[in-house]
Amino acid sequence: MQVSCFVLRLTFLSVPLHSVHRRFVPVPASLRLERLDSGRLRSRRTRVCVLATTHSSRAASRMDDSASAPARTDNARPQRFCTRCGAQLTIQTPIGDYRERAVCERCALVHYENPKVISACVATSRDRRKVLLCRRALRPASGRWTLPAGYLEIGETSRDAARREALEETNAAVLVGPLLAVYELLQAAQIQLVYRATLERDWTPADYRQNAETLEARLYGWDEIPWDMLAFPTVAWALRYARSTLHVPDSTLVPEIRVKSASGEQFIV
Amino acid sequence: MQVSCFVLRLTFLSVPLHSVHRRFVPVPASLRLERLDSGRLRSRRTRVCVLATTHSSRAASRMDDSASAPARTDNARPQRFCTRCGAQLTIQTPIGDYRERAVCERCALVHYENPKVISACVATSRDRRKVLLCRRALRPASGRWTLPAGYLEIGETSRDAARREALEETNAAVLVGPLLAVYELLQAAQIQLVYRATLERDWTPADYRQNAETLEARLYGWDEIPWDMLAFPTVAWALRYARSTLHVPDSTLVPEIRVKSASGEQFIV
Repeated sequence: MQVSCFVLRLTFLSVPLHSVHRRFVPVPASLRLERLDSGRLRSRRTRVCVLATTHSSRAASRMDDSASAPARTDNARPQRFCTRCGAQLTIQTPIGDYRERAVCERCALVHYENPKVISACVATSRDRRKVLLCRRALRPASGRWTLPAGYLEIGETSRDAARREALEETNAAVLVGPLLAVYELLQAAQIQLVYRATLERDWTPADYRQNAETLEARLYGWDEIPWDMLAFPTVAWALRYARSTLHVPDSTLVPEIRVKSASGEQFIV
Repeated sequence: MQVSCFVLRLTFLSVPLHSVHRRFVPVPASLRLERLDSGRLRSRRTRVCVLATTHSSRAASRMDDSASAPARTDNARPQRFCTRCGAQLTIQTPIGDYRERAVCERCALVHYENPKVISACVATSRDRRKVLLCRRALRPASGRWTLPAGYLEIGETSRDAARREALEETNAAVLVGPLLAVYELLQAAQIQLVYRATLERDWTPADYRQNAETLEARLYGWDEIPWDMLAFPTVAWALRYARSTLHVPDSTLVPEIRVKSASGEQFIV
């Protein structure tokens, strides 16, 4: 009973405190009163959360595999607070583990970080003479040409993700074929699954619809590809391998596997 | 100044509170006093964070793909607090996005969740007559036979992960060959990359070393595999495909691609 009273008193007292530290005082990491934050106070503050960057556009941004950037994960930020209980995390090596993790000492949750999967496709016209590329609207490599690509989502297959990204970024409906390539970018903590795909219908640049991620989309003949204006090495790898295997039936296509190490070294596995 | 005093007073008062609610009272989600938790109080309470479950063992646990369990992600828990600023998260659809995410209204960080990659290998003796299996020490499917497997880590390739897991779980050094299979388990939010591998040296069960994840390891002839005692359908898929492609050279091996949908339906792509 004494405990409950104590909690209620805090709740009452924290209203002016909260409004003060919001504006003038750095938020102390040791004190957070979230019931207030999400309940009574929300209507007073009427804060609107504007999140203009979509997941897939961030994925496209993360196709950056330049050698100079530091190692990073999805959100390019360290994990500082426990997602389960909100306590501050510490870096330590859990018992039985072999590397350091962000660990919650309060609830013992280990916050693992793992590479993410990106799905992409090399989509060609039905006669396979032309390939669909889109021009990036976002950094890095904005203005340069790339493949439709984005993060694999919970609940979808990597092939569905490739189809979805093609539709979102170029407004092209594609039939996804066999796995064309697996590219692992250690520095970017990414593994890219690239599929061979075919346009379901005739498609022209007029079919393109404005979206947040691409400036335009078009079909390039294999001899017209703007190699000097491609966004990333992986795009060039995939296009070259797709072109060199145009004659290979889907059923016998062996994926190209390439790695780009943390130091920037590239090799074919 | 008033704010600082308030924080200090909480610090003082929370000592008995903390020791009480730890034992008798459910922790109110609205109240957390982390500076106490990780600072002054730590030495008095001498709370030791025991994290006996390693990442790879949890990965193995998550090879469970039974159709009855609900969709889940890495830690089988919803994200409740912002990992960057500690504020409580809300579920909403960010502008420009097409699905709900856990969003921080304070710092605008979107907490994306994505499928994780598991690396596994079907490791055979050099004459390819026997295959290396290990018996799970952990739930689910503890006591059943499986492949060496575990989560892909930041900074390693999926092939390195397969080699590492074989060493950790069976104490066998393996040479990792071509990609044998890609299995997507939508319900488990997993994508498994299974490699063909070969034992580097002669290996017998006597070489096995006790570890947290496996009870034993042994080499099975292809006709001795305990099909009824395999841990997961994916293990059976990989073993069958490995056996059926024993004669196929590494350079022409086409990976088997299978999906298990959220409803439990299995299909070969």
